[in-house]
Amino acid sequence: MRRIKLVVAYDGTNYSGWQIQPNAVTVEQKLNEALFSLLGEEVRVTGASRTDAGVHALGNVCVFDTNARMAAEKFSYALNQRLPADIVVQDSCEVPADFHPRFSKSRKTYEYRILNRTFPVPTMRLDHYFYYYPLDAARMQEAAALLEGEHDFKSFCSVHVQSETTVRTIYRCSVQKEDSRITIRVTGNGFLYNMVRIIAGTLIEAGRGNLAPEQITDILAARDREFAGPTAPAHGLTLVGIEYLS
Amino acid sequence: MRRIKLVVAYDGTNYSGWQIQPNAVTVEQKLNEALFSLLGEEVRVTGASRTDAGVHALGNVCVFDTNARMAAEKFSYALNQRLPADIVVQDSCEVPADFHPRFSKSRKTYEYRILNRTFPVPTMRLDHYFYYYPLDAARMQEAAALLEGEHDFKSFCSVHVQSETTVRTIYRCSVQKEDSRITIRVTGNGFLYNMVRIIAGTLIEAGRGNLAPEQITDILAARDREFAGPTAPAHGLTLVGIEYLS
Repeated sequence: MRRIKLVVAYDGTNYSGWQIQPNAVTVEQKLNEALFSLLGEEVRVTGASRTDAGVHALGNVCVFDTNARMAAEKFSYALNQRLPADIVVQDSCEVPADFHPRFSKSRKTYEYRILNRTFPVPTMRLDHYFYYYPLDAARMQEAAALLEGEHDFKSFCSVHVQSETTVRTIYRCSVQKEDSRITIRVTGNGFLYNMVRIIAGTLIEAGRGNLAPEQITDILAARDREFAGPTAPAHGLTLVGIEYLS
Repeated sequence: MRRIKLVVAYDGTNYSGWQIQPNAVTVEQKLNEALFSLLGEEVRVTGASRTDAGVHALGNVCVFDTNARMAAEKFSYALNQRLPADIVVQDSCEVPADFHPRFSKSRKTYEYRILNRTFPVPTMRLDHYFYYYPLDAARMQEAAALLEGEHDFKSFCSVHVQSETTVRTIYRCSVQKEDSRITIRVTGNGFLYNMVRIIAGTLIEAGRGNLAPEQITDILAARDREFAGPTAPAHGLTLVGIEYLS
């Protein structure tokens, strides 16, 4: 058996997220179906990040095991012929049989995209969160910098989720403004449930003036979801990529 | 009667272009319907650019006449509440009763967007033309520069269309590359049918190496559609805006 790793991009608009579930169409399901169509056998992918409904990816990662003899790099092309236009495999390669996309050490990068102007732009509506009130990107950047480092991110995690630990490391959290587009880019060793969307919601509060950038320190210290800003909508979020550290 | 000018943005994916036609959904029709819903009277917009099916706009322009007393700038907000999410009015203002969006002197700017990489990116599929073979943007820029100025663009016009004259002025035609995105941006005093898409198709041939940039001069001189490159697909094209010169 060989283990094949896929890098997968998708427009999450028309999917109920990554993970297979009854009575809903998911990205994982579409990949399994494409593999079945290609290989004629039931193959199940194991994903790195189980993105929520509406969240997009440029480089989510999954693996599957197969006896098929096809050259590893050919899988991308062969699967893309069997996938809908909103899911595209970007790369396929062979990995060691013990490589696990979720449990292997990695750095994940997410982008949260905001369109900040008076009126929405139709061609950007699927992957940008439209925000009407003017945001001060410099203030957002100031707040973002305080999230960098190893912290207990309990305040930035959906309350109903219990991870063993809520300590995570953010290597970099930056805010860039280009015309009316504001992009929050965050790289970390792992993210709690809804963490990036709560970070985005909190930075938006800072940009709007409802929160002083320094307050990020207090929010972290509180270890209480009530202290952070709202959870920003899913469709502004894109999983940019996952870098595995071996 | 007052004449109101609207600046309209749309994602052309789900429309059979601008112009009203039987058995098809068009942008013009949606605007007329929104105006009827708002004003309770049959109002018909007159558009500046009758964009083709699948072509997008950030700033197409149209006008309508009304006796309604609503403040001119309020129309954008009121119409957006009645329009689908893929059509958004960006601005509304009063203009002189003799202002005609198509016959008034103007500068139009179009962008043709190309995604040039090995695999498509799902979130960019609606407004970028995916092109697999590597393109040399510097060569495309060299070719683009030769299109600037006043020329007879007969070679860059669909054969079945007869305009009185095929002479047009291109003020600027530039090619920009950013990562795997190549953007052709062209500003002119008017464009023949399919002209920007034929320009894009021809610049792509230059970028691919099938055409020497200098050949643009010969193509212009030929005044024959056969000499230019293919018509690039509609969905890569965006009408960026129209500036009226008074």
